[in-house]
Amino acid sequence: MSASTGVFDDLRAAIDATLHRFLDERAAALPEARPLIAEMTRLLDAGGKRMRPLFCYWGHRAAGGGHGEPIVVAAAALELLHTFALVHDDIIDLSPERRGQPTVHVTHGTDVALLVGDLALVLADDALLTSGFPPEVLLRGLGAYSRMRQEVIAGQYLDVLSPMEPISENRARRIAVLKSGNYSIEEPLLIGASLAGAPDELLAALSRFGRPLGEAFQLRDDLLGIFGDRRVVGKPTDSDIREGKRNVLFAKTVAALSGAERDFFTSRWGGASLSEDEIDRLRGLVETSGARAATESLLEELAGAATATLASIELDTPSRQALTALLESAVGRDA
Amino acid sequence: MSASTGVFDDLRAAIDATLHRFLDERAAALPEARPLIAEMTRLLDAGGKRMRPLFCYWGHRAAGGGHGEPIVVAAAALELLHTFALVHDDIIDLSPERRGQPTVHVTHGTDVALLVGDLALVLADDALLTSGFPPEVLLRGLGAYSRMRQEVIAGQYLDVLSPMEPISENRARRIAVLKSGNYSIEEPLLIGASLAGAPDELLAALSRFGRPLGEAFQLRDDLLGIFGDRRVVGKPTDSDIREGKRNVLFAKTVAALSGAERDFFTSRWGGASLSEDEIDRLRGLVETSGARAATESLLEELAGAATATLASIELDTPSRQALTALLESAVGRDA
Repeated sequence: MSASTGVFDDLRAAIDATLHRFLDERAAALPEARPLIAEMTRLLDAGGKRMRPLFCYWGHRAAGGGHGEPIVVAAAALELLHTFALVHDDIIDLSPERRGQPTVHVTHGTDVALLVGDLALVLADDALLTSGFPPEVLLRGLGAYSRMRQEVIAGQYLDVLSPMEPISENRARRIAVLKSGNYSIEEPLLIGASLAGAPDELLAALSRFGRPLGEAFQLRDDLLGIFGDRRVVGKPTDSDIREGKRNVLFAKTVAALSGAERDFFTSRWGGASLSEDEIDRLRGLVETSGARAATESLLEELAGAATATLASIELDTPSRQALTALLESAVGRDA
Repeated sequence: MSASTGVFDDLRAAIDATLHRFLDERAAALPEARPLIAEMTRLLDAGGKRMRPLFCYWGHRAAGGGHGEPIVVAAAALELLHTFALVHDDIIDLSPERRGQPTVHVTHGTDVALLVGDLALVLADDALLTSGFPPEVLLRGLGAYSRMRQEVIAGQYLDVLSPMEPISENRARRIAVLKSGNYSIEEPLLIGASLAGAPDELLAALSRFGRPLGEAFQLRDDLLGIFGDRRVVGKPTDSDIREGKRNVLFAKTVAALSGAERDFFTSRWGGASLSEDEIDRLRGLVETSGARAATESLLEELAGAATATLASIELDTPSRQALTALLESAVGRDA
């Protein structure tokens, strides 16, 4: 997100200060949960771009909502929800690292990680509930929030199933949209806008902007997961290959290969004890098959659709500038 | 709960019909999640007393709330929350059976069970949010609900830690209250009453009734977990001993024993590959140490306090009769 570093620094700082204050208050109210909450703080302090809070905040502003504590708290709630998703996701994927640090299940075992995730989910709701919006407005936002959470979990489930079935590009795209795309951009925008009482037409327009952008963001994430810089991404760039991620890059590569190359690729992607040479060869096949370039093209097409929609929405200047900067950072090339 | 079977049959049937309709609707709206929802249905159909929904419903009626779809849906939501707690609890405890059936993690693996629990939690919220109460009233109920969920998870965390530390009776009681007591009776009552706009004095009185009753209920559960009838309890009655549950019975037994008996008890409780003879000897020590009788006494004392408080609350006749029947069933001797 370095392309736009600086623009959102103050807002990120406000969101992080809110997160720390909220978590400190909850730890004081329920001292038994303090070690679980400390794990959330550790993960938050280790990094992260706060993308979901930023989209939520600017969805709110775009719909005419004002700056103030309620929307900052609601935006912070989305980061806590993301903390839940990351911790449970890392359990399922057996991921060793997150944001350059050992994952919770590695440090404290699966049982504690399960409970850290559960509590993060419940505290995210608590933050939203106590954000200070009037009841009717809050319930509109909670409706969008509830749908989003169901989709994230359904997407995660498809992801769990995917190693057991052949996977088409369409299927891989559907999983990406459910698991990450909608939840990263479209739904945060809609939650923020709903909390400003946005009319249906604006919500629909924000969906048309956020949906392709969310998918483009996920594709960027997939590309970085294989071709990115480990120091920037914060986890090993061989982990998607070792875990055998059945994403769009995988599906496109399988579709483009044939014969011995295809056999090697499908049998060793996610295979046991991969050597460095095998990792390099698998990564090379994603490149030489044309899958990497085709994914970059698809990403550009989706980002282009989002850009065109954004241009068609009537917005005040600060919202347009912020959403444009967020769009660029979501599909940017570095992290 | 057979002491009062019949009294609540119609209400249980209404709650179950609501649960099935709600889950069917959500499965239709998000087909990808259907297999996860099917696991919830399987667990619901396998049994359970619907105690939390019943207390929620009668807390509502006791506070002057009417019978109707909103309170039945809200009550059903608490059963979905309980489904979340059971599924994640069973993962942590490595429990093989629940309600006489193999647990979700045994049938589908830990990853799927994790997601079944996550989705049950999120769907419980969704049911509450769409229950049809007016926004202001609903948010009051959600406040109580939010506190309850944090406590359950904190209690579960203490339970995870407990095998690693010496445990006093006070500590065991605190874990029981957090993990199960409040969440089974007191908080459901308060949620139901809040959804009827109950004044603070009534909420405080219901707390004084529900809190000791919740602890008594947990003690009954602990007693049944060691001395109950497997066919009634729905899980092996050696499982608490095999898992090494650090509950009040355990703490009281340790405190009462000395010398070789104490060494045997503390080293083999929850030990690896326990023989039937060892199980019988461990169970026997809970009896001969006096821990079983002392726990029964404590249970009676707590149930007596609840009974006395109930007598002091001003209630209409149906609510008094229902809460009396629920009290008896919560601490009854069979299941």
